[in-house]
Amino acid sequence: MSIGENLQIIWNPQEIERKSMSIIDEYLQGKSFAPVEKDIIKRIIHTTGDPDILDSICIHKEASRAGIEALRGGCNVYTDVNMLLAGVNRKKLQGYGGDAYCKIADEDIAKAAQELGITRAAAAMRLWGSQLDGSVVAIGNAPTALFEVLDLIEKGIAKPALIVGTPVGFVGAMESKELMIEKNLVPYVTVRGTRGGSPSAVSVVNALLYYQGN
Amino acid sequence: MSIGENLQIIWNPQEIERKSMSIIDEYLQGKSFAPVEKDIIKRIIHTTGDPDILDSICIHKEASRAGIEALRGGCNVYTDVNMLLAGVNRKKLQGYGGDAYCKIADEDIAKAAQELGITRAAAAMRLWGSQLDGSVVAIGNAPTALFEVLDLIEKGIAKPALIVGTPVGFVGAMESKELMIEKNLVPYVTVRGTRGGSPSAVSVVNALLYYQGN
Repeated sequence: MSIGENLQIIWNPQEIERKSMSIIDEYLQGKSFAPVEKDIIKRIIHTTGDPDILDSICIHKEASRAGIEALRGGCNVYTDVNMLLAGVNRKKLQGYGGDAYCKIADEDIAKAAQELGITRAAAAMRLWGSQLDGSVVAIGNAPTALFEVLDLIEKGIAKPALIVGTPVGFVGAMESKELMIEKNLVPYVTVRGTRGGSPSAVSVVNALLYYQGN
Repeated sequence: MSIGENLQIIWNPQEIERKSMSIIDEYLQGKSFAPVEKDIIKRIIHTTGDPDILDSICIHKEASRAGIEALRGGCNVYTDVNMLLAGVNRKKLQGYGGDAYCKIADEDIAKAAQELGITRAAAAMRLWGSQLDGSVVAIGNAPTALFEVLDLIEKGIAKPALIVGTPVGFVGAMESKELMIEKNLVPYVTVRGTRGGSPSAVSVVNALLYYQGN
């Protein structure tokens, strides 16, 4: 390896992980969190590369318990976009008896979305309907998917165990997340404001999957 | 739809896209960019939900031309992680004759990484080796993958047409991107600092794929 001779490049993956988490720990000094919530926060900071995102992270007080119980009980994870699906540790999830799904690229979803005049991400949630009951719903991209899930809950069609809701962007993302917090229908984890995205949602789901404690 | 009755929720995907891009245009008012570079910048702002990321975006003056020529010529896109692979519009890419690849979950890569004491993302780049010649290399997560590609170029093993290099995090990410800029071996697009991630890399690749001009 000749590149970056003057740099102290760390190549070992375990060492990178250790060093990375220790740097993030420094940013969190003086703050106190429950262990699993700290894992969630650290993973979101890690995936965004931005310690300032801490101030935007909002974790419902029942979220980690509800999420861990559901995942360990073999619940499924329903996602809005394929990037999120690609990031979730499905092997770990399958080990508990569940799996992760995304319907956004399915033909029946494209057709339903067209007919209903809604996004494919929202159409996927509507077509899953009562299947979302007891599941973890993870939305990293589309505010309309989050609005749709809140509507399904209010209508009594499904009650997810947990919503990991971190849609991103300037049209409806902030509003959908604030509505989720305000309605307080089920436990949630979110990143408030216009920021968020699939990596943040993945971080939350995997933190819950990897958590070793009770 | 009963949820969010007091909100002006936009459900139509085209309208969301239009409104979103018009909000981002407002953030860019008074600034001047070449059309394709503006597309790249707008997509990165869109996917991060953060107009302030503009100041960290760095586009090599030959990057868009080199990337568009290579993609239209049927080059492949080699990615470091599956989340990035999941976001690239492969249909569009296949229409030009290329495809997108990620080897991080392959068994031979896990074995090679273990033997070499490097990350799987870096091992994938090393095993691709000369295949990276003339390609678009997109790295959204692993600084070690970017260090490795820069090394392959310096050793004369491969010369990608473009590097989309937006690794994220606190261990090596900033350093790998600064080294890419400093060495200036091939055209690049990057987000400087600790931030970045797969969505930013996806944004750049898709902006180049979707661009209609010359």
